[in-house]
Amino acid sequence: MSEITKTNKKIILTGDRPTGRLHLGHYVGSLKRRVELQNSKTYDEIYIMIADAQALTDNADKPEKVRQNVTEVALDYLACGLDPKLSTLFIQSQIAELTELAFYYLNLVTVARLQRNPTVKAESIARGFGSGIPVGFFTYPVSQTADITAFDATTVPVGEDQLPMLEQAREIVRSFNGIYGDTLVEPKELLPENSVCGRLPGTDGTAKMSKSLGNCIYLSDSADEVKSKIMSMYTDPNHIKVEDKGNTKDNPVFIYLDAFSKSGDFQKYLPDYANLAELKAHYERGGLGDVKVKRFLNSVLQETLEPLRIRRAEFQKDIGGVYDMLKAGCERARETAARTTARVKKAMKIDYFG
Amino acid sequence: MSEITKTNKKIILTGDRPTGRLHLGHYVGSLKRRVELQNSKTYDEIYIMIADAQALTDNADKPEKVRQNVTEVALDYLACGLDPKLSTLFIQSQIAELTELAFYYLNLVTVARLQRNPTVKAESIARGFGSGIPVGFFTYPVSQTADITAFDATTVPVGEDQLPMLEQAREIVRSFNGIYGDTLVEPKELLPENSVCGRLPGTDGTAKMSKSLGNCIYLSDSADEVKSKIMSMYTDPNHIKVEDKGNTKDNPVFIYLDAFSKSGDFQKYLPDYANLAELKAHYERGGLGDVKVKRFLNSVLQETLEPLRIRRAEFQKDIGGVYDMLKAGCERARETAARTTARVKKAMKIDYFG
Repeated sequence: MSEITKTNKKIILTGDRPTGRLHLGHYVGSLKRRVELQNSKTYDEIYIMIADAQALTDNADKPEKVRQNVTEVALDYLACGLDPKLSTLFIQSQIAELTELAFYYLNLVTVARLQRNPTVKAESIARGFGSGIPVGFFTYPVSQTADITAFDATTVPVGEDQLPMLEQAREIVRSFNGIYGDTLVEPKELLPENSVCGRLPGTDGTAKMSKSLGNCIYLSDSADEVKSKIMSMYTDPNHIKVEDKGNTKDNPVFIYLDAFSKSGDFQKYLPDYANLAELKAHYERGGLGDVKVKRFLNSVLQETLEPLRIRRAEFQKDIGGVYDMLKAGCERARETAARTTARVKKAMKIDYFG
Repeated sequence: MSEITKTNKKIILTGDRPTGRLHLGHYVGSLKRRVELQNSKTYDEIYIMIADAQALTDNADKPEKVRQNVTEVALDYLACGLDPKLSTLFIQSQIAELTELAFYYLNLVTVARLQRNPTVKAESIARGFGSGIPVGFFTYPVSQTADITAFDATTVPVGEDQLPMLEQAREIVRSFNGIYGDTLVEPKELLPENSVCGRLPGTDGTAKMSKSLGNCIYLSDSADEVKSKIMSMYTDPNHIKVEDKGNTKDNPVFIYLDAFSKSGDFQKYLPDYANLAELKAHYERGGLGDVKVKRFLNSVLQETLEPLRIRRAEFQKDIGGVYDMLKAGCERARETAARTTARVKKAMKIDYFG
């Protein structure tokens, strides 16, 4: 069985939980590449989901927060260059069929299997759920399988940490196809191209940007906010005086430069150095102050973020238009998901009125 | 908060899992009263669900069995006197909204809470699931809550053993209304009127009729099948000779007579006795053979079952018509469930396009 036999199409499903505005970590980890994939036109269909229903699995008591962030994430998407003409942007909760698929897939997974899922385990610990883990959160790998298979997605861009989720999805697909006949497409992961595209540390040097830690640079931050966050970034704590030797490896300022600086940036903003290697070497041997490096990072980041900021401001003027776009996306997504669900229910023999 | 505030209506939701034809246990335990409730017209709306989706939670690999039994259960319903003009008969899987509600309710229940549910525990042990319990089965109390609340049911007829399920439903309703505002109706149980309406033992004397034990008398059994099953019923194992003293208490033949015999039956079929008390007294003091009692039970049961059998045969001639009726019931049920789901999603602020 091959995913090609179903539709012969290359289809991407991806998305984000609307629990906050999107930040540089999202940009480096997924958004930038998502836009590249979109513009490369090497995929036949791209579905990008604002996963409000999934956000509610651990924010059930914060519906207003989720609602507001649906708008923020939509704006962030458009700001990044996701284009509703090329990608179907939609809101998860508006596709009722996703819950139908999830409901039936729950029969194909044991409680013990979900308890062994390392991603659920890690995220449950991170959220401090203990034995109070909500069933909706506990079962979200099954819900994700519904999201993926509803669109016959062949390709799911994920980080390494999400691989167990995709393995769970493939298990469910195989189990379903084994019992009910060849119906669902088995998805494959699309991993980041290199380690820089992995996780960006927070501005405080902790492993990742996280709203609750207050260490994020948001795509929607103003130029002043970005500058102020950069200038107060954590660097090498032992690099106290300019002449001190410095560490560039665990230094978020340099990690951000790894992720964002381009060759032309030096000529434009810091012509004393030919490239990042030279800058790092100077910092490591001593004699280069943090402020100078941070100012350079600010120039680099502002150049990246400025076009996003301008696009965001444009879309922000017409939120009604943004929702019209989302509505059209939901309608398109729903048509596809409804076709898959009809196929699934026929295979399960729960189609009575054909 | 009171259920009356929502609709001022008295609404029943009930149903059966289509995993086999319905038998005398179902008749005594629920169907008989269900027909009485229907015909009493004391309820504004009655929804009767053929729970195929729930049947699949522990029959995921037997879709054909579930499919076939949907037809059988529909015929059994009509045979018993359930009337599509008075009750909405529908098939669970055709109401997609039920899975949407279940999906969101999963966020309001913890894994630990479901693990403590005594009904799930007992049924899981009965099915020998061990740690291999499918998540769909594990979460079926949540699915049942969706079924109940989708129709704003005020009243759910249940046996004592199902009370924990209804308590779970009430907990979810309270949790939902507490977070999202007064949205769902809190259901109340309707318990059997007396102990005879509890569980009927199997023909082999075990605690309940169960298809897998082969100890059922089905509503659709022919007159000959019923007679043959009665004549080979388990009685008092110590009542060997006619003159032996007999036990009527744990004797399924007498328990069936408790459930089915009416005052007129003696005059008609066994005029030597004025009533059941006299018959039991004779059996207990010795001198009354099993065959005589069984023949009487056969007469009584045939009188009960004959009109059902005739009605079933009529409907069986027009399965297309039965499915037309179910289709109309599904459409009616879906309208109601869609209204509730819209209300739920609005309360949860996941209504984006007004």
